[in-house]
Amino acid sequence: MSPTLPPLAGKLATLKSSAIRDLLKLTTRAEVVSLAGGLPDAALMPRERIAAAADAALAGAGCLQYTESPGWGPLRDVLAARESARLGRPVPVSEVFVTHGSQQALSLLAEVLLDPGALAVVEDPAYVGALQVFRAAGARIVAVPLDGEGMRVDALRELLARGERPAVVHTVSNFHNPGGVTMSPRRRRELAELAVAHGFWVIEDDPYGELWFDEPTPEPVAMFSPTVIRLSSVSKILAPTLRVGWMVAPDAVCRAVELLKQGADLCGSALTQQIATELLSDDAWLSAHVDRVRAAYGERAKALVHAVRTRFGDRITCTDATGGMFVWADFTDGTDTGALLPRALEAGVAFVPGSAFAVGEGYRHSLRMCFTTSDAQTLETAIDRLAQAHAG
Amino acid sequence: MSPTLPPLAGKLATLKSSAIRDLLKLTTRAEVVSLAGGLPDAALMPRERIAAAADAALAGAGCLQYTESPGWGPLRDVLAARESARLGRPVPVSEVFVTHGSQQALSLLAEVLLDPGALAVVEDPAYVGALQVFRAAGARIVAVPLDGEGMRVDALRELLARGERPAVVHTVSNFHNPGGVTMSPRRRRELAELAVAHGFWVIEDDPYGELWFDEPTPEPVAMFSPTVIRLSSVSKILAPTLRVGWMVAPDAVCRAVELLKQGADLCGSALTQQIATELLSDDAWLSAHVDRVRAAYGERAKALVHAVRTRFGDRITCTDATGGMFVWADFTDGTDTGALLPRALEAGVAFVPGSAFAVGEGYRHSLRMCFTTSDAQTLETAIDRLAQAHAG
Repeated sequence: MSPTLPPLAGKLATLKSSAIRDLLKLTTRAEVVSLAGGLPDAALMPRERIAAAADAALAGAGCLQYTESPGWGPLRDVLAARESARLGRPVPVSEVFVTHGSQQALSLLAEVLLDPGALAVVEDPAYVGALQVFRAAGARIVAVPLDGEGMRVDALRELLARGERPAVVHTVSNFHNPGGVTMSPRRRRELAELAVAHGFWVIEDDPYGELWFDEPTPEPVAMFSPTVIRLSSVSKILAPTLRVGWMVAPDAVCRAVELLKQGADLCGSALTQQIATELLSDDAWLSAHVDRVRAAYGERAKALVHAVRTRFGDRITCTDATGGMFVWADFTDGTDTGALLPRALEAGVAFVPGSAFAVGEGYRHSLRMCFTTSDAQTLETAIDRLAQAHAG
Repeated sequence: MSPTLPPLAGKLATLKSSAIRDLLKLTTRAEVVSLAGGLPDAALMPRERIAAAADAALAGAGCLQYTESPGWGPLRDVLAARESARLGRPVPVSEVFVTHGSQQALSLLAEVLLDPGALAVVEDPAYVGALQVFRAAGARIVAVPLDGEGMRVDALRELLARGERPAVVHTVSNFHNPGGVTMSPRRRRELAELAVAHGFWVIEDDPYGELWFDEPTPEPVAMFSPTVIRLSSVSKILAPTLRVGWMVAPDAVCRAVELLKQGADLCGSALTQQIATELLSDDAWLSAHVDRVRAAYGERAKALVHAVRTRFGDRITCTDATGGMFVWADFTDGTDTGALLPRALEAGVAFVPGSAFAVGEGYRHSLRMCFTTSDAQTLETAIDRLAQAHAG
């Protein structure tokens, strides 16, 4: 005889499972080529180098204990040096905070920066992990559209002119997930200027910046104002299993995040943080490794875009895939991608319909395709199948 | 010229840094014997076994990728089997959820079970990690005192009779941190019955249960009602660096926690979860390993308690230390332990004053001592120094 269970918190009603995750469960049939995931390619991850670093760390007992909440000291040193080079200013170690992947940084920042009812501005289509944590923090969410130059900063300016006062503006500045675009240098400066003028935080979420194919990404938004908090991660360049992300933020933000991190999970893993330190410290090796990842992803991206343009012609427009992991495409012939998905799965290809990334309604004719985990030929097969489903 | 930074969320004003953590920073001088920490002994952690398991996991690429939010499948299988044995009923894998240490389970449960303003009942003195997450969730906190048989369930019953309606009651049922006591079998049944009768959740937080010295702990509170959520961890029996904790909870709770875990950090580390799986699967080795830890801690605990009783006589009463990591002591002569601490540090010994664990005011004559990381002789020296500081 089991008793009735007590109730759960009311806010759970406002949260929903990630459509991407639910879809991933659909696409585990081996014969389906999945463009739906958002995973880096495990075959390109430096397994032997990670194993050697694990051995070295585990030769002593120093990596077994709890570590400090802001991260293992030497890892923060390496990250401070790398971020100093990226941002063109000396970044003190106290402004570098290591998190359990950059998603944890986003989640803790949502709590640190947002009061219930505060306004969070996101890009549309949106990174769903940002939507989730801003919703969980009880924020009011307003979306600003993307175009080929990234966030429509003019639309943000209009919001501000209408009297909206965001507490936080979130941007995936490089190789947007899911939109595929990169914010132009001019808009980066404009966004930073607006943040200073109107007193809001910008979260510059940059997990993909190092995965450029033809030319490096523009200077980070965080170069132009201390009100911009920069997030990054080793998940896309080394391996997600390390669960090492980080933020660069003013001291007051880092200390507030530290308070919440203590309650959230005390600290990260000293073992995986020591592994990450070893790999990030070896500049020559790391640079060659990331070059290999870039070359492989770049070839796959070009194959996917070429196949889409060849097979669909003017019935689809799609991004150029100059870096990152995703191509965003819009059907111009009125195709509803939510309706197309079941037929596509039957034909043996999976993707994520655009509506999964819409802040409200919208993107019903769009789709996101991930090109990282299939070779060029498989990607061509995938697009053949998509064309077959579309024609069917 | 740096601009004024935007404000942080209002709730930060209600949170404060853990007194324990701040104290730990004070006690890093090598000549100070620290009884203040709460760390297991790294010298007793199975470093070579962890290194071998890391090697085995890293022989394939299967541990490099993101893993599932509720944890790596084989780890959940092993935990379900172990928890089935502990709880005397078949625990389905769907009711086992792996977290980044059991502190993350507590933190996610605070969000899943508590609406702002809801009542959370804690034990007094309290586990500060529970206070932190309940405060962060905006809960109202009421404390119920401990005595030699653990939580004063009669005091909880009085609360209920006065019309209080807790959403959650938190207990560290075995070898309480900081109180050192274990809840009696009779009170376990009573607590579970009250939870069913009054419709509240119990969080049975049990990181220390396997560290018994003379006899195994009583049957878990979770045996007596499905409204009891059980938490445990490998941190105290294997190593904190694995960051593997777990909860056993009804399906609806696990699915709600899964939603929040996706936003909190997506997933744990497939590498450290595979290492934990390997070590938890080897019953014979694990049993011998935990016996070694028990024997070492038991000897230290007895040395500490003996030294306290010998040196202080009836000026102190202290717990018997039948397991876990802590001895709780009360001065009977009016000594203020907050005032004693600076003198003790000068004499070369650190402890945590009882007030650090008080829900309101209180425990000004009490202290917590951790016996895990020093040998018997060093613990005797520590108590000699404490007596010297007390006399001075």
